[in-house]
Amino acid sequence: MSPEAASETLADLGELGLVTKILSQINAAKISGIGVEVPAGDDAAVISTEGSSLALSVDMYAEGKHFRTDWSTGIEIGRRCAAASMADVCAMGAQPAGVLLAIGMPGSTTSHWAGEFLAGFMEEADSAGAVVLGGDVSDCENIVISVTAIGHLLSGAALARSGAGAGDTVGICGRSGMAAAGLRVLQRGLRSPRVLVDAFRVPNIDYSAGARAAKSGATSMIDISDGLVADLEHIARGSGVCIELDTKKIAVPEELVSTAAAFGVDPMGWILAGGDDHAIVATFPPKKRMPRGFTAIGKVAPAPVGAVLIDGVAYADAFEQVPGFRHFSS
Amino acid sequence: MSPEAASETLADLGELGLVTKILSQINAAKISGIGVEVPAGDDAAVISTEGSSLALSVDMYAEGKHFRTDWSTGIEIGRRCAAASMADVCAMGAQPAGVLLAIGMPGSTTSHWAGEFLAGFMEEADSAGAVVLGGDVSDCENIVISVTAIGHLLSGAALARSGAGAGDTVGICGRSGMAAAGLRVLQRGLRSPRVLVDAFRVPNIDYSAGARAAKSGATSMIDISDGLVADLEHIARGSGVCIELDTKKIAVPEELVSTAAAFGVDPMGWILAGGDDHAIVATFPPKKRMPRGFTAIGKVAPAPVGAVLIDGVAYADAFEQVPGFRHFSS
Repeated sequence: MSPEAASETLADLGELGLVTKILSQINAAKISGIGVEVPAGDDAAVISTEGSSLALSVDMYAEGKHFRTDWSTGIEIGRRCAAASMADVCAMGAQPAGVLLAIGMPGSTTSHWAGEFLAGFMEEADSAGAVVLGGDVSDCENIVISVTAIGHLLSGAALARSGAGAGDTVGICGRSGMAAAGLRVLQRGLRSPRVLVDAFRVPNIDYSAGARAAKSGATSMIDISDGLVADLEHIARGSGVCIELDTKKIAVPEELVSTAAAFGVDPMGWILAGGDDHAIVATFPPKKRMPRGFTAIGKVAPAPVGAVLIDGVAYADAFEQVPGFRHFSS
Repeated sequence: MSPEAASETLADLGELGLVTKILSQINAAKISGIGVEVPAGDDAAVISTEGSSLALSVDMYAEGKHFRTDWSTGIEIGRRCAAASMADVCAMGAQPAGVLLAIGMPGSTTSHWAGEFLAGFMEEADSAGAVVLGGDVSDCENIVISVTAIGHLLSGAALARSGAGAGDTVGICGRSGMAAAGLRVLQRGLRSPRVLVDAFRVPNIDYSAGARAAKSGATSMIDISDGLVADLEHIARGSGVCIELDTKKIAVPEELVSTAAAFGVDPMGWILAGGDDHAIVATFPPKKRMPRGFTAIGKVAPAPVGAVLIDGVAYADAFEQVPGFRHFSS
């Protein structure tokens, strides 16, 4: 590290800068009996153990940053943390199989809240078919939750972000923009429309969608945590292609239309830039039938490489909005 | 939960109370292609995937509680977090194979510190043969680190805390009491003896000891994180036996003797009650030769069940000291 960088803070570097720095230091290796099929950097790493493959991923959620206890109940926060983490292994084509939970809480946290959180966490894990394999508790100034998800790759090969090819169809399973709209509703001090607020509080995930897509021959896949465009950019860059979205094919739920009108914004902004819904987006070979639950919303083009076009226009030009969100911003 | 418990806090309940509550809610199950051989509650859970078994464990470390940035460098904290987590999968008889890291830090954290932490973390993982399989970063009020460790069970069966039998020999691989003594030194504002302070900063772990013990036919195993007696009590209770320690067989390093004398305490107190050294303790069948690195320090007796005796005396009577330490104490 150069001397002039010694005072650089994480707020300067940003989350992406830090993640890039970390990934550049990691080397995947072949180790005792375990093969690393997909190293850290995708939705989840994939390891194989004598013919059977597992996807593994970790996520951290901090009070005030990812959730607020006055906006969501303990049950909802527990469900959401489990859901968001398990979505990552689904996005590799895996079926959730296990979760490990580490939670830091202040000593003033009530046992009631902790019990509710755990009940929600286990309820969501159970609904996905995942067993709680371990946990740790610690005391912390604020509530901090870390969830490791493990998924079983039933169909063999993992679906990384790098396999999309020109001509592929882009399909989505699940909703996009609902959680972002719900967050805006809560930020304005409102509690309805309930369907949007609920979408923010607990994502509604089809935990078999990733495995179905893998079985159907999908070429690449990701779950939408930072926003549809932001996450499709990962596929565009990882695969060296361009993703062309056709907004005419994207259904806009009535609640989004009416709430966006009340807020004086375009609902498509929430759909394209809003995160936290954890819909699964995948690319499928041309003429291949998409599995149940997936809807076509665009296609893969050869160029411009790394770009996501909205009805043929670069995203930044189509909307004056920054996709995803930046951690460590001061 | 009963209504009168609604205001109960984690400080009232304590860490053990919370963990017990969590474990009572978890049911291990047989799921799609993955069998849970050892559920949550031991050092690590063990899953099998078509004949090959993996041990998994998660731990959380909070600034001010588990480490202090003015007592340890970023490199040392990174190494210690990786080491303590990997020790748990070793204690199941596994060889560390992978780690996942989630870290929360305030935006004011310097990139330099974060870089040092990561370098230390990866150095320790590498020394154990483990690949960094994933990570997440978040911003938090204080530094919070969560590490998931994955180990490969080369010899097949996992070593839980429940297999010790009367007549077995108790063996230890690694040192005990050094880290606790180093912590007391730092708490007094001192920086030496260096060997004790270093022991607190980074545990010195033989990552193959657990796998060697498993291969040698050990009947139960645990790593010392809360203290030799406190952790042996887990084996005594889990196996329904009594552990009899013979202090004449426990080597007391010269640095412990001299520092304890200067502090006016018995060095055996640190050895028996001090945590964080992550030595591996295992029980071996009578007349079975212990593997390289293990020293006999006692034996397993049929009764009193759940007790650890020190030279024939109950621990609480032998030392006026509470083993382990209690989180969430206010």
